[in-house]
Amino acid sequence: MQADGKFAERRSMNDEYIRLSLDEVAALSRDILSHHGLAPQHVEAVTATIVAGERDECASHGIYRLLVCANTLKTGKVVKDAVPVVHDIAPALLRVDAGGGFAQAAFARGLPMLVDKARTNGIAALGINHCVHFAALWPEVEAVAAAGLVAFACTPSHAWVAPAGGTKPLFGTNPIAFGWPRPGAYPYVFDFATSAVARGEIELHRRAGKPIPEGWGIDAAGRPTTDARAALDGAMLTFGGHKGSALATMVELIAGPLIGDLTSAESIALDDGAGSSPIGGEFILAIDPAGFLGAEAAQHIERAEAVFDAIVGQGARLPSLRRFDARARSLANGVQVTRRLYEDVQALLG
Amino acid sequence: MQADGKFAERRSMNDEYIRLSLDEVAALSRDILSHHGLAPQHVEAVTATIVAGERDECASHGIYRLLVCANTLKTGKVVKDAVPVVHDIAPALLRVDAGGGFAQAAFARGLPMLVDKARTNGIAALGINHCVHFAALWPEVEAVAAAGLVAFACTPSHAWVAPAGGTKPLFGTNPIAFGWPRPGAYPYVFDFATSAVARGEIELHRRAGKPIPEGWGIDAAGRPTTDARAALDGAMLTFGGHKGSALATMVELIAGPLIGDLTSAESIALDDGAGSSPIGGEFILAIDPAGFLGAEAAQHIERAEAVFDAIVGQGARLPSLRRFDARARSLANGVQVTRRLYEDVQALLG
Repeated sequence: MQADGKFAERRSMNDEYIRLSLDEVAALSRDILSHHGLAPQHVEAVTATIVAGERDECASHGIYRLLVCANTLKTGKVVKDAVPVVHDIAPALLRVDAGGGFAQAAFARGLPMLVDKARTNGIAALGINHCVHFAALWPEVEAVAAAGLVAFACTPSHAWVAPAGGTKPLFGTNPIAFGWPRPGAYPYVFDFATSAVARGEIELHRRAGKPIPEGWGIDAAGRPTTDARAALDGAMLTFGGHKGSALATMVELIAGPLIGDLTSAESIALDDGAGSSPIGGEFILAIDPAGFLGAEAAQHIERAEAVFDAIVGQGARLPSLRRFDARARSLANGVQVTRRLYEDVQALLG
Repeated sequence: MQADGKFAERRSMNDEYIRLSLDEVAALSRDILSHHGLAPQHVEAVTATIVAGERDECASHGIYRLLVCANTLKTGKVVKDAVPVVHDIAPALLRVDAGGGFAQAAFARGLPMLVDKARTNGIAALGINHCVHFAALWPEVEAVAAAGLVAFACTPSHAWVAPAGGTKPLFGTNPIAFGWPRPGAYPYVFDFATSAVARGEIELHRRAGKPIPEGWGIDAAGRPTTDARAALDGAMLTFGGHKGSALATMVELIAGPLIGDLTSAESIALDDGAGSSPIGGEFILAIDPAGFLGAEAAQHIERAEAVFDAIVGQGARLPSLRRFDARARSLANGVQVTRRLYEDVQALLG
């Protein structure tokens, strides 16, 4: 436990917010996860992503996510003491069998071999199997980019999203993420759902009793709807029409059957109404610029900076910039969460 | 020359259309390209994609494209007798230096080693450098899928497209393509621009004097426009807002600096107003399902069919279906082109 004592002295910004250090966030996460029976290796790996999410102000993947984690642990669908097993299956491929546990520990186990294989062969891919995935993908692509490699990752989820022109849920929200190492800076990172929005966004509208914009969902009869409840009972839509739908299909295939794992439809069928996080696979690609470029790698990586400069120079934003700004603030000053969320999470210890 | 004599007996469907066999399309392409000084190896490789485009009723990549090819050849920006050179640079990577020639011959030279490397290592990538790329990417991903491999390809183009939130051209239309082998069927293939539409689509609106829909482009001052001319002089937009913009950035990076080649901004600067097709690189990825799955590959590839069945079963369409339907028609009955286009192309021999 790294809690540094500040936990007890937390001070309210006002009646609504509580400020926590990142160590306090970690301690809270460890307490909750341990209390729900998660084995120490998983507690550490999951806590790392909870802290990263809160630190980067990805509210839905920070402390809030402990509520979802606890619920998933209660469903009995997660193997709490799973021991990930690494399989070296081809010169440039590996699989990690997560054994039904959370994906984080499996990724941590597979990462060193993925990096080694990419450096040796120029490119390599990791398939994580039989894992429960509940987090964003940017921690994975950032970890690969931190090794100086170009990264791509994707994962199916539960069948909530209809294909373009269709009427019924088939795809998951099927996020894709990409990371590009930048000298002396945070990597270029994007991580987005191939659904029009995150499912949680529609859930928030439902709770607030607000209509959703057109293009987010269809009702159970396949008709466009602005009713959040109807969209949750019907199907979500992909972003970008048939193009987003094609990308969602790619994710189903390469992070599903290609690595011998479940599609989103199979995942939700296995869940059978229990409300667990999606269970299945994740696909992660790593490419070594030095493999393509040899001694000229640094020079071309530097040349890529002109692309980022041109984006920023015309007033556009790089994806993840908001996260990196939040990270700097959080590293300096800690984070703040609502008192209500803090109390809801504390109640998980009861 | 494989022209089979039907060329002379072509019959008008009516005053507007002329029917040609695929051999006649090939003969026409060979005549035009040879007439413009293209070396025989390139004539064959380019003709294969012209015939494939016309056969699949991709009008802009069939016979029509000969007009663009001829123009590109006239600019002097293409090395007409370039000899592609294959470089084996890492166990799972290769580069092909196209030597300033059209990409097709370079791809043809690199494909066997890409397939070999993917089968040996489980995954492999090919970077084509210093090529002039004017075609769709589906021929490449179909060729890789025909070897039983999963394929991904992308290429930058000329800087015509603004990043989301920006005002100035930076990205090319940056297409991405994906291919998945299907037992006993055409592969699952998508191939789309990360711009909202193809540049040619805006050009067609301009010629017809028709307004373009909102979301296709902005004017030179960065304001949304429905004026085709203003969008061509300003910037095109990506599909899917910031998500499409992120994908376009990924294409710039992995088919540009990662393989030591030009970004779209560098390509259009090199063109310097000559109006040539884009010059630069192409990135092609191949993954062997047997690498991940061993003896179980066929079983999981078969399981992927449930995804396609579920898409089609709810009345949605698979991408490329229109092309494959057209292919069946063209293989049986040949193709039809407008008399005007046919005469415009014939005039290139003058």
